[in-house]
Amino acid sequence: MQVPMPELQDRMKIFQDKLIKKGIDGALLVQRADTLYYTGTAQNVHVYVPQEGMPLVLAYRDFARAKRESPWNVIILRGLSKIPEDIQEAGLSLPSVLGLELDVLPVNQFERYRKLFPEVMFLDVSPEIRLQRAVKSRWELSRLEESAQIHTPVLDFAKEILHIGMTEVELEGLLAGKARALGHGGYVRIRGFGLEFHVGAITSGVRATVPSYFDGPVNGQGICIAHPNGASMAQIQAGEPIVLDMVTTVHGYQIDQTRILSLGPLSDELTRAYELTLKIEEKIRRALIPGRLAGEIYEEILTWVRENTPYEENFMGYGTSRVSFIGHGVGLELDELPTLSKGSKVVIKPGMVVAIEPKFIFPGVGAVGIEDTVVVESELGARYLSITPRELVVL
Amino acid sequence: MQVPMPELQDRMKIFQDKLIKKGIDGALLVQRADTLYYTGTAQNVHVYVPQEGMPLVLAYRDFARAKRESPWNVIILRGLSKIPEDIQEAGLSLPSVLGLELDVLPVNQFERYRKLFPEVMFLDVSPEIRLQRAVKSRWELSRLEESAQIHTPVLDFAKEILHIGMTEVELEGLLAGKARALGHGGYVRIRGFGLEFHVGAITSGVRATVPSYFDGPVNGQGICIAHPNGASMAQIQAGEPIVLDMVTTVHGYQIDQTRILSLGPLSDELTRAYELTLKIEEKIRRALIPGRLAGEIYEEILTWVRENTPYEENFMGYGTSRVSFIGHGVGLELDELPTLSKGSKVVIKPGMVVAIEPKFIFPGVGAVGIEDTVVVESELGARYLSITPRELVVL
Repeated sequence: MQVPMPELQDRMKIFQDKLIKKGIDGALLVQRADTLYYTGTAQNVHVYVPQEGMPLVLAYRDFARAKRESPWNVIILRGLSKIPEDIQEAGLSLPSVLGLELDVLPVNQFERYRKLFPEVMFLDVSPEIRLQRAVKSRWELSRLEESAQIHTPVLDFAKEILHIGMTEVELEGLLAGKARALGHGGYVRIRGFGLEFHVGAITSGVRATVPSYFDGPVNGQGICIAHPNGASMAQIQAGEPIVLDMVTTVHGYQIDQTRILSLGPLSDELTRAYELTLKIEEKIRRALIPGRLAGEIYEEILTWVRENTPYEENFMGYGTSRVSFIGHGVGLELDELPTLSKGSKVVIKPGMVVAIEPKFIFPGVGAVGIEDTVVVESELGARYLSITPRELVVL
Repeated sequence: MQVPMPELQDRMKIFQDKLIKKGIDGALLVQRADTLYYTGTAQNVHVYVPQEGMPLVLAYRDFARAKRESPWNVIILRGLSKIPEDIQEAGLSLPSVLGLELDVLPVNQFERYRKLFPEVMFLDVSPEIRLQRAVKSRWELSRLEESAQIHTPVLDFAKEILHIGMTEVELEGLLAGKARALGHGGYVRIRGFGLEFHVGAITSGVRATVPSYFDGPVNGQGICIAHPNGASMAQIQAGEPIVLDMVTTVHGYQIDQTRILSLGPLSDELTRAYELTLKIEEKIRRALIPGRLAGEIYEEILTWVRENTPYEENFMGYGTSRVSFIGHGVGLELDELPTLSKGSKVVIKPGMVVAIEPKFIFPGVGAVGIEDTVVVESELGARYLSITPRELVVL
């Protein structure tokens, strides 16, 4: 399946309009999620987007695949030094103001572009790109719906294989393998510098309460100091909450979802806390209304948790390991906009896709919570893209 | 297991000596593989390394774990803006020349550091770090030996489960799951901008000949345009070479290894070509002698292949999709130094660990080859860290 031509035309039109508005003559894009989004190919390319007219795709490794996949003007990248020449030979004028993805571009690579475009002013176009990509098209939503379908058979498989004494890494490995066999893309893209992501947090009992570098409410203890989050070598025991927090991708589009299982019943308190997270998730879903500010929704939910539950201290982490968000945008990357976080001024718009994840972490005990990926639609609140049943799975 | 104190002291001493030699007053390190290497913790930290004295580790998420894991002066990062103050309060002087990892540091983050250190000259210390990290200590080699042990049971498991009609993604998922259950760290770190890595290339028949953006001789067709390398949804057939190119990590240390299997015999030509790659691997291993230049070894091997095999056109890719290396350093990252590549001036030293991977790609047919991770020792050539039998596995 290729990205349809009208889809790419729409994406390009919106971006070019933004360039005009910002007074940017052209943008040179090199980050894979962005170049895939605007060109339809994930091969190695540099994309020069002029304010108007057809983008120039300079492809290397693999040129033939890029040419087949992208409808734009795809030529071979002869070398970085030839880019200005190639732009001109394609009938485009050289920019005076050039947009780059300065949020991800390494300094050394930027210095090379600086030498290529000596009189040029450089601006960061990543905020525009990220805001555009936050709003999904109908075609993108269809891919997300396909991605969501992988989660239910994976959960069913977990029900089949889970047993006391199974290690967390064994469970993670089998579930990730199942997702892969069902069409999960494998690698999960994430934009921020230094962020790393493997399968998700497949973790149980007290391990689920161990904080780590990963900026999520549930991290897992991990397998060693070098891999200090996610599944551990510990054996899963009866009566502990087992967290299945996993990401799947189809055609690159990610669904982030969490379910809780247990071997034998959980304590009444954990069960009640879990039920509360279902209620909170519904509140977040209904608060995701076009026109609202992401940070406002965050505050509203935190206030509700403070006033209506006994677990304020346990919401989204505890102590210094608490995270300051309750949801994050997903799409081609795991850390897209909007983030439902403290102070965020991002305006919620129809088509925005958010993984909402209210979770309670009880130190020394375990973590419970829910996560679903939803799409903003109307005044009625967001629509669930996740389709997996939400009840606690007690085996 | 923690990184032993003497190990960290040795690493720091070598780095500080380099800073003195280069006239760099201090280095501020933020990239995870580097900070793990120098501090012993993979938590989120900024590390300020003065020319002499104890490094200052500014930790956030998770501070307590970082404090437990690193023997240096670990304090809470209060915010980027407080870093200069924190350096001074730790009794260290502010640098006039500051080293940063400019090969990976995004421009926007660099700009923030520039404002914090207004009168300072910035230099790239990544070449020094990468050259130091290329040479492994005895402790690191022990971790690599542990990592190598995972590969044999994974291959044995492949022999057990492989059958005609199995999809490549199913095979990959099960093998990756097995590796994980055996203690593989999961996420495989890779340094270069825009490089992505999942499990490796689990690919069969003609799919193994499809080039992609990934800079390796065998890529695989992948599952979709967004994930255009590695395993595909195609079913494995009899008589095709099945490539198992996988990376494992233990305590973060990677072993990269490739074996070829088939269901039923391969053609005589593919079998002969495979035997040739064993011979070439031995030649590379024996050429890895302290004092030689990486690029020289590359040329020597290419010449040998040209003069002694009928498959020069198929070596390390074909046509424009050929890669220009025959081996690459591995350790905490998959793209470490040295690269045995065209023109490389890196001098081979004892302790360098290299994944050597001679492979032949036959368009329209399939790929065969071998890959093992070896360590440079003496005049006698490198020593195998990989311990998995190297014969073609015909099932």
